[in-house]
Amino acid sequence: MKISIIGATGYTGAELLRILASHPAAEVLYITSESQPGTAINEIYPHLTRFYSKKLVSLAELEQIAKQSEVLFIGLPHGHAMEVGRKATAANPDIKIIDLGADYRFKDYAVYEQWYKVAHTHKEAQAVYGLTELKRSQVRGASIIGNPGCYTTASILALAPLVQHRLIDLATIIVDAKSGVSGAGRGLNLGAHFTEVFENVKAYNVAGHRHTPEIEAVLGELAGEDLVISFTPHLIPVARGILSTCYATLKQGVTAAAVDKAYNSLYGDEYFIRLLGPGGYPATKNTRGTNFCDLGWHIDQRTGRVVAVAAIDNLVKGAAGQAVQNMNVLFKLEERTGLDNAPLYP
Amino acid sequence: MKISIIGATGYTGAELLRILASHPAAEVLYITSESQPGTAINEIYPHLTRFYSKKLVSLAELEQIAKQSEVLFIGLPHGHAMEVGRKATAANPDIKIIDLGADYRFKDYAVYEQWYKVAHTHKEAQAVYGLTELKRSQVRGASIIGNPGCYTTASILALAPLVQHRLIDLATIIVDAKSGVSGAGRGLNLGAHFTEVFENVKAYNVAGHRHTPEIEAVLGELAGEDLVISFTPHLIPVARGILSTCYATLKQGVTAAAVDKAYNSLYGDEYFIRLLGPGGYPATKNTRGTNFCDLGWHIDQRTGRVVAVAAIDNLVKGAAGQAVQNMNVLFKLEERTGLDNAPLYP
Amino acid sequence: MKISIIGATGYTGAELLRILASHPAAEVLYITSESQPGTAINEIYPHLTRFYSKKLVSLAELEQIAKQSEVLFIGLPHGHAMEVGRKATAANPDIKIIDLGADYRFKDYAVYEQWYKVAHTHKEAQAVYGLTELKRSQVRGASIIGNPGCYTTASILALAPLVQHRLIDLATIIVDAKSGVSGAGRGLNLGAHFTEVFENVKAYNVAGHRHTPEIEAVLGELAGEDLVISFTPHLIPVARGILSTCYATLKQGVTAAAVDKAYNSLYGDEYFIRLLGPGGYPATKNTRGTNFCDLGWHIDQRTGRVVAVAAIDNLVKGAAGQAVQNMNVLFKLEERTGLDNAPLYP
Amino acid sequence: MKISIIGATGYTGAELLRILASHPAAEVLYITSESQPGTAINEIYPHLTRFYSKKLVSLAELEQIAKQSEVLFIGLPHGHAMEVGRKATAANPDIKIIDLGADYRFKDYAVYEQWYKVAHTHKEAQAVYGLTELKRSQVRGASIIGNPGCYTTASILALAPLVQHRLIDLATIIVDAKSGVSGAGRGLNLGAHFTEVFENVKAYNVAGHRHTPEIEAVLGELAGEDLVISFTPHLIPVARGILSTCYATLKQGVTAAAVDKAYNSLYGDEYFIRLLGPGGYPATKNTRGTNFCDLGWHIDQRTGRVVAVAAIDNLVKGAAGQAVQNMNVLFKLEERTGLDNAPLYP
Repeated sequence: MKISIIGATGYTGAELLRILASHPAAEVLYITSESQPGTAINEIYPHLTRFYSKKLVSLAELEQIAKQSEVLFIGLPHGHAMEVGRKATAANPDIKIIDLGADYRFKDYAVYEQWYKVAHTHKEAQAVYGLTELKRSQVRGASIIGNPGCYTTASILALAPLVQHRLIDLATIIVDAKSGVSGAGRGLNLGAHFTEVFENVKAYNVAGHRHTPEIEAVLGELAGEDLVISFTPHLIPVARGILSTCYATLKQGVTAAAVDKAYNSLYGDEYFIRLLGPGGYPATKNTRGTNFCDLGWHIDQRTGRVVAVAAIDNLVKGAAGQAVQNMNVLFKLEERTGLDNAPLYP
Repeated sequence: MKISIIGATGYTGAELLRILASHPAAEVLYITSESQPGTAINEIYPHLTRFYSKKLVSLAELEQIAKQSEVLFIGLPHGHAMEVGRKATAANPDIKIIDLGADYRFKDYAVYEQWYKVAHTHKEAQAVYGLTELKRSQVRGASIIGNPGCYTTASILALAPLVQHRLIDLATIIVDAKSGVSGAGRGLNLGAHFTEVFENVKAYNVAGHRHTPEIEAVLGELAGEDLVISFTPHLIPVARGILSTCYATLKQGVTAAAVDKAYNSLYGDEYFIRLLGPGGYPATKNTRGTNFCDLGWHIDQRTGRVVAVAAIDNLVKGAAGQAVQNMNVLFKLEERTGLDNAPLYP
Repeated sequence: MKISIIGATGYTGAELLRILASHPAAEVLYITSESQPGTAINEIYPHLTRFYSKKLVSLAELEQIAKQSEVLFIGLPHGHAMEVGRKATAANPDIKIIDLGADYRFKDYAVYEQWYKVAHTHKEAQAVYGLTELKRSQVRGASIIGNPGCYTTASILALAPLVQHRLIDLATIIVDAKSGVSGAGRGLNLGAHFTEVFENVKAYNVAGHRHTPEIEAVLGELAGEDLVISFTPHLIPVARGILSTCYATLKQGVTAAAVDKAYNSLYGDEYFIRLLGPGGYPATKNTRGTNFCDLGWHIDQRTGRVVAVAAIDNLVKGAAGQAVQNMNVLFKLEERTGLDNAPLYP
Repeated sequence: MKISIIGATGYTGAELLRILASHPAAEVLYITSESQPGTAINEIYPHLTRFYSKKLVSLAELEQIAKQSEVLFIGLPHGHAMEVGRKATAANPDIKIIDLGADYRFKDYAVYEQWYKVAHTHKEAQAVYGLTELKRSQVRGASIIGNPGCYTTASILALAPLVQHRLIDLATIIVDAKSGVSGAGRGLNLGAHFTEVFENVKAYNVAGHRHTPEIEAVLGELAGEDLVISFTPHLIPVARGILSTCYATLKQGVTAAAVDKAYNSLYGDEYFIRLLGPGGYPATKNTRGTNFCDLGWHIDQRTGRVVAVAAIDNLVKGAAGQAVQNMNVLFKLEERTGLDNAPLYP
């Protein structure tokens, strides 16, 4: 597969390159950057030495890039990917596009425009939401994939069995998520300055984070009705990892066995989802550097609630790994191709 | 004040010594340890050199210790403090006891015995729960104080105004808390081994942590009715700090102004509580090494919930600092005596 | 003492404010900032709430500031402090100036100009180098103090007894130092971005760091002859702390007892220097938040070398703390005033 | 290749399993543990779920294990491997043994016995020292390989070109090394307790670490004469990574070009050694999870010294990775088989 990466100097782009370096069918053709065109990628990321020495090119060459590529990964800020998607599709109608940002994640463009404060300019795209385990059959035939957000992936995977099997009161969903700092990207800001983050924990964007409508849309679709959730992201002093702790009130009469069954029935055959069972405690470190999502769930008899916990590596299952998983599905490769390494522990 | 510390080799004991070293009215008389009697405290904790060189004595000398001391801080595991409390009171009826463990925290001994799996042997103690801001008048006249747990302090302080002013539906309280590793003490276990904790986040004791009934008891008292909460502790890779993120559904018609007013009316005059206001984001690092509790609150119009967040240093306001605050109240000293230092940032 | 701080929004300035908040004789009059004049200091540093709410003023008001102040701390980048020093002295000849940067650290201006690539514009200043333990008598009568660098303080304190007592071959001195990230300041750069520093260690500025000539000048003065050293700084993923590991070949016939004696004779009466003795292992954590410098030394019989190790908190003994120590000396206060707190451990 | 691992519950054993999971020619037959026989390996290390579910067996079955295996990796404490080596060789004379501990690292058993305080009981073993890049031809024909220590690997690789090409004064070698905590293993001790290590740096075992004679032996062999070095290990708060900063005085007249040439001539064709060139700054993070050793060197004209810096992942190139590299050499596989992944950054 001839692959190009649009916007490769962020952590997500670097992670894609890391994963594709071990992918037997991948050939990276072009890597673009507007900030450092002409520079070799391994000058920017010395860890990639021995794997890549390609020079970054400018997005100005998009037409040529699109024509020569079979797959395009887009790692641009939201609002920029849709233009790239439109032009690339025009240049090469057969190209497959996997956007790691938000532009192609929403079916309802009004929701996108409301939360992202930008007009959508590629509404004719028949984009598919790429949460692979839940959308595999649509992904298979897609041309454009909106790759899910990191918080979103963890939170939806934790809650989907409960929602799909109608085990919980939809009005009671609360997601309390904890993320490593790589999720904030490589751009400099005081909130990601080492000395500010180190030995510190804080919440941010309470009741306003843009992953909220994404979780709501997918869960709502599963539920067959609209729903709203409370979502609170937190920044913790690690580089990688998201832990999503999800709360909901069980419907009257729902048993522990029904909950277990829901998880097993939805995920029992999923390679990348490791079910730790009732009482299981996912830990982000157990997923580090891999595409796994570890899931555990707990029933609190005293309060009638279920607490479901998901752990992922935000840069892999939460971004570049799931993107490659989707690419594998698109090209009918074994889904774990290039993604079948064991976690880096400790 | 002549002070002795029973069980001083844990982090809480060391923190007490750190704080008392700057307390103008404190004289530390005895420090006990069953594991290392005869050793100088600064051999165990070299950072205390220049402040203490006292040798640890055994609990066998409790009677003498109690007779010579005006205050006894107890830093023993639960189940052991009550015996010390009983004997010390017998030896010196005027002694003030501040227990940093759980033995004197519960009015309802049945709850204690159910959660801690041990029979209470000092039920005649008229212990007072030492969450200073909420119990100041009782603390003033107390002989025995059950100093609150770390998670408990942060969670109750975040929720108390909402409960007291009847602004929330009591059946909807969820507390998602994140703690540094010092809360687990200095005892060796794999869960606190550096390489296991580093770049890792996980939940533990879901629906079963012993601070749950403590929070429920105090909030229930404020509410005037029994309540149950969901409480989930998480371990994060920092040494100090607890962030408690608390969720509850607002009662119909409760306004943002009413919420602000509740916080200001309960805490407006409290030195150690810093109100960051609506939309404020407490960060544990801003409280490091101090007795402050920083509070922020957020109203989520979409879901009708309030999200209240508290940050403390678990070893100070969550343990040794609040213990000294209580001692100051007991002895009618200015409450911030020995506790009036600025946080260590960054 | 009426104190003003010129350039207070960096970590050194914030640390000065933290320390001065507990100093019984300190009154902070003005705090300046060119980037955020008009903003309250505790908006920039919320941890300082309850201690300071003063608004930052511009350096444009220097004349007025100097006239009203008894002490001026300068926390500006090198090349800027000398102008402030000149103007402030002109406005108020009695003012005491303590510069935390490099401008007043060198007697030999040629060395300064060579390493810092800037012309010195205040050569008539009779500045004193403020490594308090070694320069106390000069500090006492000084008007302008060049406060030592962080690496410098640790390295010189570790080596001074060996140099002064002529125990080592001066041509063999190697200093390998490890520093926390706060030493790099609060200014944004990729090298201090959390995800880049976390789980990482690297050397930087090998054979070119500007603290090299500072160490050489002071040790050379002690030795009575010029010397050159190898100095290698490393960045380690902690916020605070410097560990300086110093190597030198012992002169023929120098005994372990002579080495011990040298340390004890120079530092035996120094409160802020804690001698861990031969075989002692200083740890940065034991000094966190304090003005202590912990020292240990080791004789390697096989190689004939001595290895001396110093640990300090780079923001305290390595910057703001030593500055306050110097202020205390200048104003004939007990030297530990405002600096007598125990370290924050763990 | 049929592989068994003796002593697999430490971090080195877990890392071997991680690497072998991606090795196309590896089949893991037996994994032993004396502490937890009968337990599945992925109960002890949940991150290995999907890769291994094998139950641990006891060393009591060594004879059978040896007979069925082609390669034996030994991950036992020193003093225990030699007995296993002797018995395994007796049971299966064709077996290849790779010991990750110290028992087979020394040609001169007297040195081993002096530093490790234990009698060697398998002196007839014709063990080969497995620093692959330097000993490849001997490794090829070996039966028993003493896999190098972690500090040793980094330090020797940094210094070998300088020693081999006679560019430095052998009496002036100083190695200052910084290691992550995983090097201390998974066994519980206060020195690896999270809260003790976090935000801390310290030296340990100055002039007494057991990797010293190992470095001396190999460099001495390269030099053709005995030598002694100063070696100082430091513990830094990261899980993985060793940075070795090496100092030596250049011989009169040695040019920068000669130094560059020495590195290029020895390592120019080595896949796993990435030369960052003169002025290069290796960072441990760039090697995380891989078998790379990054090297940079600096000439200090002022002092006449060379400073060579090496970065490795202590668990990979410093242990399990190099062991697999040696296995590949032994079995005439492409040397990078199973080791050709890109580093996990950030």
